[in-house]
Amino acid sequence: MRMLDLITKKRDGYALTKAEIEFIVHGYTQGNIPDYQMSSFLMATYFNGMTDQESTDLAIAMMHSGDTFNLDDIDGIKVDKHSTGGVGDKVTLVLGPLVAACGAKFAKMSGRGLGHTGGTLDKLESIPGYNIVLDEDAFKAQVNKIGISVIGQSKNITPADKKMYALRDVTGTVPSIPLIASSIMSKKLASGADAICLDVKVGNGAFMTDLEEAKKLAILMVQIGKLAGKSVKAILTNMDEPLGFAVGNTLEVIEAIETLKGQGPKDLESVVLEIGSYLLEDAGIASKQAAMDLLKSKLHNGEALNKLVELVKAQGGDASFILNPEKFVKASQILPLVAKEDGYIDSMVTIDIGLAAAFLGAGRETVDGIIDPAVGIVFKKKIGDYVRKGDVILEVHANQKGVQEAMQTLEKSIKIGQQKHEVVLIEGVIL
Amino acid sequence: MRMLDLITKKRDGYALTKAEIEFIVHGYTQGNIPDYQMSSFLMATYFNGMTDQESTDLAIAMMHSGDTFNLDDIDGIKVDKHSTGGVGDKVTLVLGPLVAACGAKFAKMSGRGLGHTGGTLDKLESIPGYNIVLDEDAFKAQVNKIGISVIGQSKNITPADKKMYALRDVTGTVPSIPLIASSIMSKKLASGADAICLDVKVGNGAFMTDLEEAKKLAILMVQIGKLAGKSVKAILTNMDEPLGFAVGNTLEVIEAIETLKGQGPKDLESVVLEIGSYLLEDAGIASKQAAMDLLKSKLHNGEALNKLVELVKAQGGDASFILNPEKFVKASQILPLVAKEDGYIDSMVTIDIGLAAAFLGAGRETVDGIIDPAVGIVFKKKIGDYVRKGDVILEVHANQKGVQEAMQTLEKSIKIGQQKHEVVLIEGVIL
Repeated sequence: MRMLDLITKKRDGYALTKAEIEFIVHGYTQGNIPDYQMSSFLMATYFNGMTDQESTDLAIAMMHSGDTFNLDDIDGIKVDKHSTGGVGDKVTLVLGPLVAACGAKFAKMSGRGLGHTGGTLDKLESIPGYNIVLDEDAFKAQVNKIGISVIGQSKNITPADKKMYALRDVTGTVPSIPLIASSIMSKKLASGADAICLDVKVGNGAFMTDLEEAKKLAILMVQIGKLAGKSVKAILTNMDEPLGFAVGNTLEVIEAIETLKGQGPKDLESVVLEIGSYLLEDAGIASKQAAMDLLKSKLHNGEALNKLVELVKAQGGDASFILNPEKFVKASQILPLVAKEDGYIDSMVTIDIGLAAAFLGAGRETVDGIIDPAVGIVFKKKIGDYVRKGDVILEVHANQKGVQEAMQTLEKSIKIGQQKHEVVLIEGVIL
Repeated sequence: MRMLDLITKKRDGYALTKAEIEFIVHGYTQGNIPDYQMSSFLMATYFNGMTDQESTDLAIAMMHSGDTFNLDDIDGIKVDKHSTGGVGDKVTLVLGPLVAACGAKFAKMSGRGLGHTGGTLDKLESIPGYNIVLDEDAFKAQVNKIGISVIGQSKNITPADKKMYALRDVTGTVPSIPLIASSIMSKKLASGADAICLDVKVGNGAFMTDLEEAKKLAILMVQIGKLAGKSVKAILTNMDEPLGFAVGNTLEVIEAIETLKGQGPKDLESVVLEIGSYLLEDAGIASKQAAMDLLKSKLHNGEALNKLVELVKAQGGDASFILNPEKFVKASQILPLVAKEDGYIDSMVTIDIGLAAAFLGAGRETVDGIIDPAVGIVFKKKIGDYVRKGDVILEVHANQKGVQEAMQTLEKSIKIGQQKHEVVLIEGVIL
């Protein structure tokens, strides 16, 4: 087999076999196929696409390029979720404890934030003492015991995907649905869960800005999951404004705690309930509708919050912060952004809201950047809300860093109009 | 300017500016743009093409990447021709002396053969003493004096094209009309002629096998030439069988000598006259029709052959071989291939005929391979000719090397059928 022939085959519109895709992934990871051949192959794939089977073969070959998790030691159906990334996305912090409180096994490896999106690990680390590093045995033992663990990725997961992604990033081959789908699914397949719900974010704060493209991505990821023998569903959720009111690490943990008490923002709760009910259904715990009722009861009877307390304790964190969120260190200043005219909040440039939070120190520009857990933004109004001139739209929680830059960015990112319009939160479901 | 943005721009179907193309060519030649970005750009170009202006800008930028020839010291209109390569293509050996005998200035840099096509330099070097290395001043002085010189490329011509071609060769990005056209034209523009006639070969012995694709290439090359301020024409000639009867270095020189006496194969003479009449017209020597008559008269009055004698003498060769071709060293054995049935020669796999000659030693597989000037193939019959079982179709002139391989290949490459059909030699003209 020669890489040149496989480039030509893809260029000319033919589908590659499983053996050919394995040859490419293996050869590239081992360094036998040079970057310049891989990049022309990736560009040919950008133009000619891949069949569902090719995308699946690619995801599985990338999964096999590194370590994988075997969660068979954990009793029951292991559930997982994945978000394609958005602003204010603290779904995992609420969903994990909630579904675990309902009896599902939530064994999750999370990532850190980069750019305008925050990472679950960064949010968890804003809880004093929370340890994201557990070895595989301790991780599994904890899930067996309390139903949940959320850790960082310690193993060498999907090195082929890492190398290919780095190349795509500099060769104009990122926005290819088959390549995006197989990249995400290679990691999900490697993490070993039985049932997975994908949260595909769509809008101006997400990687996918177009609904039709996002649907294609969601359908393909579900298809890859099924062809790989997993139970996979996807929901498409709106990211034309942040999810919930809070953006920033500690602020989002506090909002997650409120939501686990049944007192969180409606949009956040809706997304959590939608994903949670699919996961409970796939775990065989309840039918979709019964699952919805079960989840709501756990939000209101204290069991969901209690599961977060258990999680934090189990991973070395100080659970008193969960029970008394006023203990979290606050930013040194809280600056309001006020409406300059009467009207409805019409639109937000959501990616810029994420960037404004990053300016304040809530995010990082490079992988070794340091995060300030206390800073961020808390919205008082969202799209469709009516404001009068002078009303507070949001509050910026800041320390020294980036205040002016953040305020200017936020001011420009929010538009007020004279017609009320509302965001459709859940834009589609792929079963 | 960032290469990533230019890859994206081409990927998304936009035309690049002259400055952007110069940035790419300069950056790549200097090593500032890595192979992996160039190859994804080339694949995007394969899919999205280039405008005529972009192709022209690319050709000119590649021309400027290295040395160029300035032929202003030579009086009159300097003419040049270029063939995209075929089997048995000895047009330059006939055309050069012929148009020089008519008063045109034929200042030509030629190349060596590689793979299944032979090179003009290899053919000239089969004439004892012929020196292909002249410095620029000597080259120009000779053209001024006798109207013709044919030498090898000594300067560093179009290094950008060399580097890009080597990359295209291993990344599946060779068959792109704009890339092929700008590659050829960059070299033609660098060689400094005023009027150029391109001979685009089409058929199973040529780089372009499809007439429509070849037409597109010819049209684009003529367009690039015009946009670059040159007088350029193109003819499309058939390469579904070798041109003339002889394939192999000495054998082709002998056939060229016969043609310069007006006793050569009709197909070869036709191509020479067609190209020659365009060149004489562009040189202002005669109208197309008058040029045709002038060229024919020089083939029959001895002046064309005499010009080859002058050329060989001027470049140190032994001209007695031109006047007495029987002096050329012959191969040790001449083996006939005979017809196995009655019928018409129906088709030839022309590329395999070139390869068969290379097996015998007439061509080289690597750039430093050594050529045996005496070996090759002489056809007795061509497509459309009737043969009876046992008639000689061709003779193989061989020494020790590759005889069996060549004979087997030739046997398989020639088909006999029951219907006579003829080759259309000149398939199109682009003015």
